[in-house]
Amino acid sequence: MSTFDAVDLIRTKRDGGRLTDEAIDWLIRAYTDGVVADEQMSAMAMAIFFRGLDGSELSRWTNAMIATGERMDFSSLSRPTVDKHSTGGVGDKITLPLAPLVAACGAAVPQLSGRGLGHTGGTLDKLEAIPGWRASLSNAEMLAQLESIGAVICAAGSGLAPADKKLYALRDVTATVESIPMISASIMSKKIAEGTASLVLDVKTGAGAFMKTHSDSKALAETMVGIGTDAGVNTVALITDMDAPLGRSAGNGLEVAESVEVLAGGGPSDVVELTLALAREMLACAGIDADPADALASGRAMDTWKAMIRAQGGDPEAPLPVARHTDVVTAEADGYVTGMNAMGVGLAAWRLGAGRAKQGEPVQAAAGVTWHAAVGDAVRKGQTLFTLHTDTPERMDRAKEALQGAVTIADAAPQRRPLVLERISAG
Amino acid sequence: MSTFDAVDLIRTKRDGGRLTDEAIDWLIRAYTDGVVADEQMSAMAMAIFFRGLDGSELSRWTNAMIATGERMDFSSLSRPTVDKHSTGGVGDKITLPLAPLVAACGAAVPQLSGRGLGHTGGTLDKLEAIPGWRASLSNAEMLAQLESIGAVICAAGSGLAPADKKLYALRDVTATVESIPMISASIMSKKIAEGTASLVLDVKTGAGAFMKTHSDSKALAETMVGIGTDAGVNTVALITDMDAPLGRSAGNGLEVAESVEVLAGGGPSDVVELTLALAREMLACAGIDADPADALASGRAMDTWKAMIRAQGGDPEAPLPVARHTDVVTAEADGYVTGMNAMGVGLAAWRLGAGRAKQGEPVQAAAGVTWHAAVGDAVRKGQTLFTLHTDTPERMDRAKEALQGAVTIADAAPQRRPLVLERISAG
Repeated sequence: MSTFDAVDLIRTKRDGGRLTDEAIDWLIRAYTDGVVADEQMSAMAMAIFFRGLDGSELSRWTNAMIATGERMDFSSLSRPTVDKHSTGGVGDKITLPLAPLVAACGAAVPQLSGRGLGHTGGTLDKLEAIPGWRASLSNAEMLAQLESIGAVICAAGSGLAPADKKLYALRDVTATVESIPMISASIMSKKIAEGTASLVLDVKTGAGAFMKTHSDSKALAETMVGIGTDAGVNTVALITDMDAPLGRSAGNGLEVAESVEVLAGGGPSDVVELTLALAREMLACAGIDADPADALASGRAMDTWKAMIRAQGGDPEAPLPVARHTDVVTAEADGYVTGMNAMGVGLAAWRLGAGRAKQGEPVQAAAGVTWHAAVGDAVRKGQTLFTLHTDTPERMDRAKEALQGAVTIADAAPQRRPLVLERISAG
Repeated sequence: MSTFDAVDLIRTKRDGGRLTDEAIDWLIRAYTDGVVADEQMSAMAMAIFFRGLDGSELSRWTNAMIATGERMDFSSLSRPTVDKHSTGGVGDKITLPLAPLVAACGAAVPQLSGRGLGHTGGTLDKLEAIPGWRASLSNAEMLAQLESIGAVICAAGSGLAPADKKLYALRDVTATVESIPMISASIMSKKIAEGTASLVLDVKTGAGAFMKTHSDSKALAETMVGIGTDAGVNTVALITDMDAPLGRSAGNGLEVAESVEVLAGGGPSDVVELTLALAREMLACAGIDADPADALASGRAMDTWKAMIRAQGGDPEAPLPVARHTDVVTAEADGYVTGMNAMGVGLAAWRLGAGRAKQGEPVQAAAGVTWHAAVGDAVRKGQTLFTLHTDTPERMDRAKEALQGAVTIADAAPQRRPLVLERISAG
């Protein structure tokens, strides 16, 4: 491999130039090996924040990060593989009903997931509310479960794209997280290394999302679809609304319960709508001609869910943990709910114990927030809007503060806003 | 002192915001103490490269760097103090005749200097070509010499603005050197900490200078004058030409010899012109009504030079070292010299052994380049243009390569370009 001078490469990017394929390969490898220092990579990250990376630089950057680690191989499976990634939102439990639903239609869904940090929850934290369920599987266990059941939700191994892990930690302390090319490369390096043949991205937009505007969300979606397509992964993105939180609950066990309602044929209409929309995209990507609504109505999705939970040691029939303390927030006026601040709801759930401030902290399985009215619903003054759940009642007051002003009530009902705003596919 | 979050401050600057006084004080202190990590400061430096620092941020930044170290005090001297700083150019030996000249007129000139790195020479390296001369003085020795003789050229102590030293080393490896606010803060923090009452800046512009364009040089000059003025230092800048090298020599002992010629009333006209122009500015700043041309003509400047050299252990009458090997480059055509590439000449001198590639390397006292024609002179084909001097003849070939095409010869004489292009003063 050629050798480069890190200072030259930073200067090139700083001054608006392109990095060659060889330069990118060297940079990522040398950074992972400690040859390029953290202070050099953070200067590069800030230069990229200002100057960007073009499509070809970005594909190479992503591939170079993948090349620092292992790459999984699902080609021995008899089912087509298809995965979903969400950029994260409050109350976004869609992975839980979606993976077994798509698997029930014949696909293999290898959903390698993470834990929560900050105001959005983590999929593994949610499933760990189920008694006995374990997140860690060996590669052999994962393959066997994908073949027999079709769905796995488990912890991503540390061997996937270690360069990304190191770079993400650096970006976190140097104010270089908010860069569309670097966010895209980070997400896509892990998804491509994971070895899925198809990928559907749920890019959230709005007040409760990482991307607040439609144009930023669209740029992120297009960038990720470009990287996936370049890497031979059949990639589609939906841009979906995250002004208001999804469903009726935010919190680990609370979201499992809501997901089970959806699998049982009920549940909040927005969760059902988004689950079906993403399932249709995933099945189309995987080349499977099936209607996921049938799999939901027939109970096959629920059967797959139960099999998936059991295969990982969980008891799908066991009661979910219940919080020791609850409190409520009531409506201050009569009228229609015209808005619900996802960030405020996420923050309240986090403060009640559903999330963590630092990696490695425990979370409360039963903590969180449920809401009894959603955008568009009519409410009466004094009616319960939110129930707060926690095992540690001293957290109640600060959680209530986060909910102050989170709901706006007006005399007229709001116009209905679509949940799926745009679909982005290659070329 | 308040405490801040480094990531918040980087993000603020990245997004085009201002850093408060308290934030700057904290950042510089915390970086010097190792609380803010190198990777955070390099991201901040890159953000400043793109977003800049306004005048008030910059003055605070400079003061915060000064506050990390000692501050010298020349208030006990009976002479007014005035210093000069040059941004560096090829053949720029002006400090050598200038300091004793201005001292001979009644000022105290505390010229704390550095060593060379890259294609421009260092003042201390030049003076060390004089047998016996030593660069290191204690503060007490410096004060005594300033009072009795009026001029000191010595090594800057490591106690001045240690934050700048740490930050400069970081910028060097992260491609964040070329930032006008950060260059300005770096230079001015040392000059203000040094305690001079007045300061004249020689800001070079052109092919052989760090700043290649007049507009960049002007921005740098204005920024530094602003910082100096804010700090109560009477500061003026001259923007001077550095397309062609200054004088007729580049190299340590060679430049000492040329400086002595100037002090003896001869020497190249451009060196004399710039020395006098800077001397007039320095004397005006110091409030001294004297004509430096008189001090030069009367031999008083030469007397001061000899006293200054002797006070630091040097023998001003001792012969300067002579290189063991010389070679020549001749003119390839008849005509007029219309251009001489300062960078090529500087690089040749450096390759012959006059400069160093890494801090701490020794330099050759006698190595360098002399040129026998300057811009505007008529030359004949075959006439000697350059003499190359070195103790290590294996360096000759690569030095000659650097001089290839360094001189342009045309049929018509060029228009004379002024040496002092613009004067920048406060308000």
